[in-house]
Amino acid sequence: MTTEAPNSGLTHFNQTGQAHMVDVAEKKDTHRTAIAAGNIRMKPETLAIIQQGSAKKGDVLGIARIAAIMAAKRTSDLIPLCHPLALTRVNVDFNIAEKTSSVQCIVQVETVGKTGVEMEALTATQIGLLTIYDMCKAVDRGMVMSDIRVMEKHGGKSGDWISLIDDAGEN
Amino acid sequence: MTTEAPNSGLTHFNQTGQAHMVDVAEKKDTHRTAIAAGNIRMKPETLAIIQQGSAKKGDVLGIARIAAIMAAKRTSDLIPLCHPLALTRVNVDFNIAEKTSSVQCIVQVETVGKTGVEMEALTATQIGLLTIYDMCKAVDRGMVMSDIRVMEKHGGKSGDWISLIDDAGEN
Amino acid sequence: MTTEAPNSGLTHFNQTGQAHMVDVAEKKDTHRTAIAAGNIRMKPETLAIIQQGSAKKGDVLGIARIAAIMAAKRTSDLIPLCHPLALTRVNVDFNIAEKTSSVQCIVQVETVGKTGVEMEALTATQIGLLTIYDMCKAVDRGMVMSDIRVMEKHGGKSGDWISLIDDAGEN
Amino acid sequence: MTTEAPNSGLTHFNQTGQAHMVDVAEKKDTHRTAIAAGNIRMKPETLAIIQQGSAKKGDVLGIARIAAIMAAKRTSDLIPLCHPLALTRVNVDFNIAEKTSSVQCIVQVETVGKTGVEMEALTATQIGLLTIYDMCKAVDRGMVMSDIRVMEKHGGKSGDWISLIDDAGEN
Amino acid sequence: MTTEAPNSGLTHFNQTGQAHMVDVAEKKDTHRTAIAAGNIRMKPETLAIIQQGSAKKGDVLGIARIAAIMAAKRTSDLIPLCHPLALTRVNVDFNIAEKTSSVQCIVQVETVGKTGVEMEALTATQIGLLTIYDMCKAVDRGMVMSDIRVMEKHGGKSGDWISLIDDAGEN
Amino acid sequence: MTTEAPNSGLTHFNQTGQAHMVDVAEKKDTHRTAIAAGNIRMKPETLAIIQQGSAKKGDVLGIARIAAIMAAKRTSDLIPLCHPLALTRVNVDFNIAEKTSSVQCIVQVETVGKTGVEMEALTATQIGLLTIYDMCKAVDRGMVMSDIRVMEKHGGKSGDWISLIDDAGEN
Repeated sequence: MTTEAPNSGLTHFNQTGQAHMVDVAEKKDTHRTAIAAGNIRMKPETLAIIQQGSAKKGDVLGIARIAAIMAAKRTSDLIPLCHPLALTRVNVDFNIAEKTSSVQCIVQVETVGKTGVEMEALTATQIGLLTIYDMCKAVDRGMVMSDIRVMEKHGGKSGDWISLIDDAGEN
Repeated sequence: MTTEAPNSGLTHFNQTGQAHMVDVAEKKDTHRTAIAAGNIRMKPETLAIIQQGSAKKGDVLGIARIAAIMAAKRTSDLIPLCHPLALTRVNVDFNIAEKTSSVQCIVQVETVGKTGVEMEALTATQIGLLTIYDMCKAVDRGMVMSDIRVMEKHGGKSGDWISLIDDAGEN
Repeated sequence: MTTEAPNSGLTHFNQTGQAHMVDVAEKKDTHRTAIAAGNIRMKPETLAIIQQGSAKKGDVLGIARIAAIMAAKRTSDLIPLCHPLALTRVNVDFNIAEKTSSVQCIVQVETVGKTGVEMEALTATQIGLLTIYDMCKAVDRGMVMSDIRVMEKHGGKSGDWISLIDDAGEN
Repeated sequence: MTTEAPNSGLTHFNQTGQAHMVDVAEKKDTHRTAIAAGNIRMKPETLAIIQQGSAKKGDVLGIARIAAIMAAKRTSDLIPLCHPLALTRVNVDFNIAEKTSSVQCIVQVETVGKTGVEMEALTATQIGLLTIYDMCKAVDRGMVMSDIRVMEKHGGKSGDWISLIDDAGEN
Repeated sequence: MTTEAPNSGLTHFNQTGQAHMVDVAEKKDTHRTAIAAGNIRMKPETLAIIQQGSAKKGDVLGIARIAAIMAAKRTSDLIPLCHPLALTRVNVDFNIAEKTSSVQCIVQVETVGKTGVEMEALTATQIGLLTIYDMCKAVDRGMVMSDIRVMEKHGGKSGDWISLIDDAGEN
Repeated sequence: MTTEAPNSGLTHFNQTGQAHMVDVAEKKDTHRTAIAAGNIRMKPETLAIIQQGSAKKGDVLGIARIAAIMAAKRTSDLIPLCHPLALTRVNVDFNIAEKTSSVQCIVQVETVGKTGVEMEALTATQIGLLTIYDMCKAVDRGMVMSDIRVMEKHGGKSGDWISLIDDAGEN
């Protein structure tokens, strides 16, 4: 166990077991990236409405993208022990999977800083999916959000990490 | 199609297909409740660490509960077309499911107001799960959040709604 | 001068001349609406780019609309003496005026509450225009925002008010 | 067209035409400044009240100044694709123009960072003017805010830029 | 012990001892007021500088008043289990006590709602005092804030309550 | 008096006596720390309830700790002229003093930046104490918060500073 992880490896607790915002002053400002993803399953009719939303009206995914980007910037306001970070990039993609009647949200976040951006990517993913739910709930209350996770991260002391989950498992 | 849903039934778009915050002035202030739930799957070792946590030290779930409650209050800041609401109750429960090595988060939200509280319940659920991810990511980056959905809602013009998904499907 | 306006008629100062959030407890919850408008002038080439934008790509106005709606909800966070209000409707329209090479933003806000919603309509108008500026500044730094004002308001003790400025003066 | 501007030069859209927070990781941290300005026109009687506001009571402009400074810090919360920035200076001046019965607001913002501060200066200007409106609306609902624009900016890759609009046009 | 207070009388915990935002749906919307106060002690030279401040320049207390009013509106964002409330009045007074070389801040908050406004009055008091600290810390880092407390509250089921502490004890 | 302090030494006013966010662009990014503390006095019965709160239920101090950490991150939103800062560490301790029937809150904050973190440490201390008040007010409305102050600070141009107040005076 490293000195950073006195409590079962959970760095968000100090040596007395109390929550703290962990000291990162000595960490280097490095270029860090993270990709998170998740999906929302819905009725085929709902998916059809989203797909028609284009040509200047009913743009569900365009609105969800803006909500996701703005949420990335609010991460440290929402997650108690998360360090504030000046993000240098946020990109949000939506993939429509007709076979599973779902929309997948993929978010890439980058910074040059002392801590990673996994939480920012996950927060953006969740709020992006949640905004789709909000926009469509009048016609489909039973939508379900799943498989929200970090896909990969790069940079920082711990370096590269890539999810081993088969992407096919996602939809 | 009712007059409230000119665009394929999506009430968040007006008759020209543009996003708007829909008019609820004429809606009655009624008692409304919603229950949302979702889970986060992790390694058994991670679940064991969470289970060892107590209020005295390493209390992952206690911190996630506070984050969930605070997030419920921020919902209309995060979801673009969501009406602001004065919540009258937020309750957050966590169930540990050793069989599936996961923690389930269940959130009940209530208000006396003009709009439902499904979005608040879902937002709280997501941020509660995300906080668990944040607290434990130092030991388990591969955790996955799934099955985030509305379980039931009551009150308002549309009345009662209960999810038909078998709860067993959750874990 | 009424008892509400001890200081030259400025109700936001108390009888000792100090700023306060004025007492509205006795005011009735009535249906209140306000319409605000403003415009942003730009190069004809910039306007052409905005016009080419669609929901599928480059949708400047769709993004500005979301920013405007979200800003309406943040008004009491931004304007020091503004009462918090639960908005019941926000609608944002953009009109393109090729003759003056400008985009006009018109915002309607409604509530059922104790205070008017002029500030919310103006805040949404300003942030909507500002977002257009932000989206287009890479090609046109000289854009100018003007004629931001309340067009009309209804409801509350002071009742109806309609701006006397000739609308032609706007563009 | 540079590689940064695939979509008609609008850098806030990526190559598929979707909104993103543009990648600035490779940009240098340089000293950046921006000056924005705008004015609010009102009845001469209203201007007279503002001018009397001093000597410890009824200080409209002092309150508007604080609102403007605080708003500068909230810019990235309000403007969807704006990068968060750690501002190093905000200065707000108000000039009274009796001839045009208006108050001009001039805001200077500085940072040492990867992106410019024009948006922060404009946001502060708008909220400063809006706070004047709020403080005085009880006596003058017809006030109009105009000529809100960037006056000059310095620093960063694009270097210096100064507005060519004749300042006399402002009042 | 009433049914509202299953855990040693602390209503912010539910019957299993977990934190929750307590159910207030059944509570009546009544007119509620609270007065809080507190003080900040400083060097006599610092107090003299504050006293010389006027609305025209160096107005420490005017700025602290605005910060206090704005903080009252942010209370439910800051205090985890606090219900959001639409405040109907906030008034902030500062009394200078030369004898004790201190400034006392007194805040009155009112609402028509389901919960009391003690927390809003206390939050405003603390941020008002803290802003004085911030404004003056360049000349006096040793300032101390004390005796921050609720003075009285009215309205709601529990009715009137007045602090028994002798006011003289305050300075 | 240095050039940074034209107005009686109060750096938050510019040379014309108006509030500004002071220019720190030229300041070096150095490692800065601050420790603040304060206490809340209560009835012995209330203190006993807090002390029993543990073992997975009724954890008043755990919740107050989270509120304090989150508040540290919100400081520049609350204090008008405070620069935004990316905190690198926040640690919150509570000491129970049975003799004085009080809880002391001690907060350490660190950053690598251009300005000190005294305000962040004080804000966290105040909100930590306020949260204890909120959690316990159902059984003890007369609690009083006192002796909130900076204990020490290090780093930056002004270097080290340690409060001369005898710690015994605290309880």
